[in-house]
Amino acid sequence: MRRYAGGMLQRDYPTQYCSVASTLEIIGERWTILVLRDVFRGIRRFDALQRHLGVARNILQARLERLVESGILVKRPYQERPLRHEYRLTTKGADLWPVMVALLQWGDRYAIEGERPIILQHRDCGGELDDRRRCVVCGVDVSVTEAVAVPTGAGRAGLESPASV
Amino acid sequence: MRRYAGGMLQRDYPTQYCSVASTLEIIGERWTILVLRDVFRGIRRFDALQRHLGVARNILQARLERLVESGILVKRPYQERPLRHEYRLTTKGADLWPVMVALLQWGDRYAIEGERPIILQHRDCGGELDDRRRCVVCGVDVSVTEAVAVPTGAGRAGLESPASV
Repeated sequence: MRRYAGGMLQRDYPTQYCSVASTLEIIGERWTILVLRDVFRGIRRFDALQRHLGVARNILQARLERLVESGILVKRPYQERPLRHEYRLTTKGADLWPVMVALLQWGDRYAIEGERPIILQHRDCGGELDDRRRCVVCGVDVSVTEAVAVPTGAGRAGLESPASV
Repeated sequence: MRRYAGGMLQRDYPTQYCSVASTLEIIGERWTILVLRDVFRGIRRFDALQRHLGVARNILQARLERLVESGILVKRPYQERPLRHEYRLTTKGADLWPVMVALLQWGDRYAIEGERPIILQHRDCGGELDDRRRCVVCGVDVSVTEAVAVPTGAGRAGLESPASV
């Protein structure tokens, strides 16, 4: 009765028939959520991800491969000589946006001291997103493609700007 | 310029001034989110958590202590002879509910094969919660105290029911 999607995936929590545990089996490894965060922000190439995250190349490679195997990212060539790939979110990957927003908003409130590094806004009107990803100005439900992450400039010393990647 | 809340916490992602990374520093350890999931479902005592999770006692103890240090759980006595404690969510802890719901809903859709183990409902009218934690029947924004997690019975073979704890 304990069925898991994706038989190739490691069963980290084997006694748990639970959607939360099953999600963590896929995205709960160290660094994976930060890789996804960067891809959501438009950092899609291996070298740029590696620089931005400061993670060992072999770990990044393993995380990206698993995300591709899980159908969360796809790998696409963007250059032929030499061959270079970038990673893009699938629909399954983009559907992790509510997870990312929830982690971000809780962190804004409780895990960060001082100014928030990023503000999520509704692209059309510039209104902020509330905790249900609605625009506080015009009231619409904002989807991932209608949202924009605006850096406040806080804490950027020594960090590469995503815009420069 | 890189400031972190909670100086006693391990800095797992030291180059990251980011609310997502900072949240993961607090709740990103293996088992921590499953401990919180169980507390959200009303499993609050050490032995019950240990049985339900099937995790080693020393790991569970370390996770609970860190959650208390972080102000996410409080430890309260529920029995005097012998002294026994239970763990309850603070407001800071209860505010992790959107994270839990987002992980659950993504898992329902992509990580679990077959029937969902749990359905989140609006307590007042029984309507399901959508991906913005709104009731699909009456349309209200549902808060954590207005929601109820109803087991479907799927995949419960061999698992202890939270209701019996």
